[in-house]
Amino acid sequence: MLIVQKYGGTSVGSSERIKAVAQRIAETRDAGHRVAVVVSAMSGETDRLLGLAGQVTDRPDAQASDLLVSTGEQVTVALLSMALKDMGYPTQPLLGHQVEITTDSAFGRARIQRIATDRLTSALNDGAIVVVAGFQGVDADDNITTLGRGGSDTSAVAIAAVTCADVCEIYTDVDGVYTADPRICPRARKMQRISYDEMLELASLGAKVLQIRSVEFAKRHHVAVHVRSSFAPDTGTFLVEEEPSMEDVIVSGVTSDLNQAKITLLRVPDRPGLAAKLFGPIADDNIVVDMIIQNASAEGSTDLTFTVPQDDVQKALSRVAHIAEEIQAGGVTSDTQVAKVSIVGLGMRSHAGVASRMFQVLAREGINIQMISTSEIKISIVIEAKYRELAVRVLHDEFIAPAQ
Amino acid sequence: MLIVQKYGGTSVGSSERIKAVAQRIAETRDAGHRVAVVVSAMSGETDRLLGLAGQVTDRPDAQASDLLVSTGEQVTVALLSMALKDMGYPTQPLLGHQVEITTDSAFGRARIQRIATDRLTSALNDGAIVVVAGFQGVDADDNITTLGRGGSDTSAVAIAAVTCADVCEIYTDVDGVYTADPRICPRARKMQRISYDEMLELASLGAKVLQIRSVEFAKRHHVAVHVRSSFAPDTGTFLVEEEPSMEDVIVSGVTSDLNQAKITLLRVPDRPGLAAKLFGPIADDNIVVDMIIQNASAEGSTDLTFTVPQDDVQKALSRVAHIAEEIQAGGVTSDTQVAKVSIVGLGMRSHAGVASRMFQVLAREGINIQMISTSEIKISIVIEAKYRELAVRVLHDEFIAPAQ
Repeated sequence: MLIVQKYGGTSVGSSERIKAVAQRIAETRDAGHRVAVVVSAMSGETDRLLGLAGQVTDRPDAQASDLLVSTGEQVTVALLSMALKDMGYPTQPLLGHQVEITTDSAFGRARIQRIATDRLTSALNDGAIVVVAGFQGVDADDNITTLGRGGSDTSAVAIAAVTCADVCEIYTDVDGVYTADPRICPRARKMQRISYDEMLELASLGAKVLQIRSVEFAKRHHVAVHVRSSFAPDTGTFLVEEEPSMEDVIVSGVTSDLNQAKITLLRVPDRPGLAAKLFGPIADDNIVVDMIIQNASAEGSTDLTFTVPQDDVQKALSRVAHIAEEIQAGGVTSDTQVAKVSIVGLGMRSHAGVASRMFQVLAREGINIQMISTSEIKISIVIEAKYRELAVRVLHDEFIAPAQ
Repeated sequence: MLIVQKYGGTSVGSSERIKAVAQRIAETRDAGHRVAVVVSAMSGETDRLLGLAGQVTDRPDAQASDLLVSTGEQVTVALLSMALKDMGYPTQPLLGHQVEITTDSAFGRARIQRIATDRLTSALNDGAIVVVAGFQGVDADDNITTLGRGGSDTSAVAIAAVTCADVCEIYTDVDGVYTADPRICPRARKMQRISYDEMLELASLGAKVLQIRSVEFAKRHHVAVHVRSSFAPDTGTFLVEEEPSMEDVIVSGVTSDLNQAKITLLRVPDRPGLAAKLFGPIADDNIVVDMIIQNASAEGSTDLTFTVPQDDVQKALSRVAHIAEEIQAGGVTSDTQVAKVSIVGLGMRSHAGVASRMFQVLAREGINIQMISTSEIKISIVIEAKYRELAVRVLHDEFIAPAQ
């Protein structure tokens, strides 16, 4: 088998951890497999480098920033290669530009366009363990680029795709994908398998196991992904193609997200084009708006509510205040004490009444629903932040693991 | 003018220093010059990285080591580029492989074979300040290599050579080349100019201002080098082609070197081929032997003495012990309490009696000479370490700055 293994920041966070990872790679190799490894920067390293940049300038140039932070993965590649060579394994370290991982030039959030396979394949055919720097690529002008936080997941899946690897193992500090956060929900259990679409929703909704883009990539290129712990030998969770039997499960996971803020424009005149006027400038500021709700009233005015990531709330508010005045809205309010709680499952497609069951469960606990948003396979609600854990637990009890 | 500026580790040792260097580069640019900058790793960074390697393995692979330590220069390039861009200057950061600084594959001590000028020249023609990572290159297989400690000097001189720069300014923590170490010899003075050959001898003899290889490179390619301080605006010392008037100065500099150890084989049978038998294995261990002295005696045996760098003395002794037994020598002694003191000057070529004047001066002070070695433009002696400062001072007084 050809196995791609990706080790994240905590998995390679110290020299001891790097030696442990080398041992694990060696065991895979000794079992007769060909192995390509993708690594992240040692945990804390990227922040240390950005701290240096912050001492030099308040507005670091994006191209130079990528040049700076890409050294993080390079250090890990070098140290892990040393460890493997020290153990007697032929090893080929490769940086993004050496593989030729070509990306666009969107520094700091570049997208992979093409991966050359010549050097990867010839090193693997020579019997070497290939150690690739994740997170980084090179644009058409030979400038170093980075894929954005968590981009090493995408590097690994992409490399698994172009090398036609049998599996892409994502090693992390959790041992798989859970039906809910076990710190909140004691009865949460590890899933053995999950479909790409469900994982996409979970990743978008706050489950931090995998970068969303890596899941999209895996889905598009049919890469079998195995999320597992680098600290324990157990089997983790497999991301796989959807199978008919999966629809039998109505809800596979419950997630929550505290990094949300709600902004409301009061008494907006109900005229065409106002939404565009509002959300255009917000998008220009690179603020991602999640949910939007508008309630038209009889009097020709409406309240408009939307959510943004909590970090962006001040920036969004300053935009909104400006526009609210221009369109003569009745005022602006905001609330950061909110949580988004979601249920995800392929079975929702074929089972009616899931939403009403969800609302009943919450009503029974006295939890007021402020906003609702649905897709084919998920339902998200916004509630008061203090009810987050309770909501996750009761929804998990209701749909996934009923109390005995 | 096209000016190449090289800033060493202490010159870019902190974010404050990097901002100061950016200011200095900006002033050069504002004066109407085109500027290419070559930088080293921030001081301490290379040792930090090697420390990480030491935690992973006792014998780090040379190729992986180069991959590791080359991140040091990359960080400086990124931070300095940020600082310059923040000040509004168009800036092109370039790593060794991006310039295409091609070297051989001797990892850790690679030699430059070729430097492509396309990207350098086009960036300079576009009006950009070019910021190049010193110390690093890339071999024919696209592996990252490094040039050995101090290699950034060589990078800078080589880049000045291929771009036909008007001058290569080496910024360091001293303000030029001195006639002797000012800490030892209070009357030492900064030289305004020095020939390449004299600088080569001085660099070989312990003056740590410039890497020897960079001086060889400058000589071969006729690069005007200006050694000066990054902490003060004064003119430093120019390395220039030899001029006839330079021979008027008999001695231009006095240097000393404490990093020497003396090894003596006693009563070696005086047979052909013994020297080869001894120095072959020592060379195989990459130990650089400096002086060798053999005194044939009447009885058909001889004492053979040679010097090696102090760090290598244990390694050399273990080799020598083995061979001494084999050739039935009378014993082996070693002495690390020695110093090499040298005088250098083009004028020695045309002035007789310099050596005897040197020996007289030392004899007057009661300093015993243990070994002597001469070249066309230098005389080196080995003496007891404790006399080092005294010897430097009296030789400086005698040849360079006579007491009033």
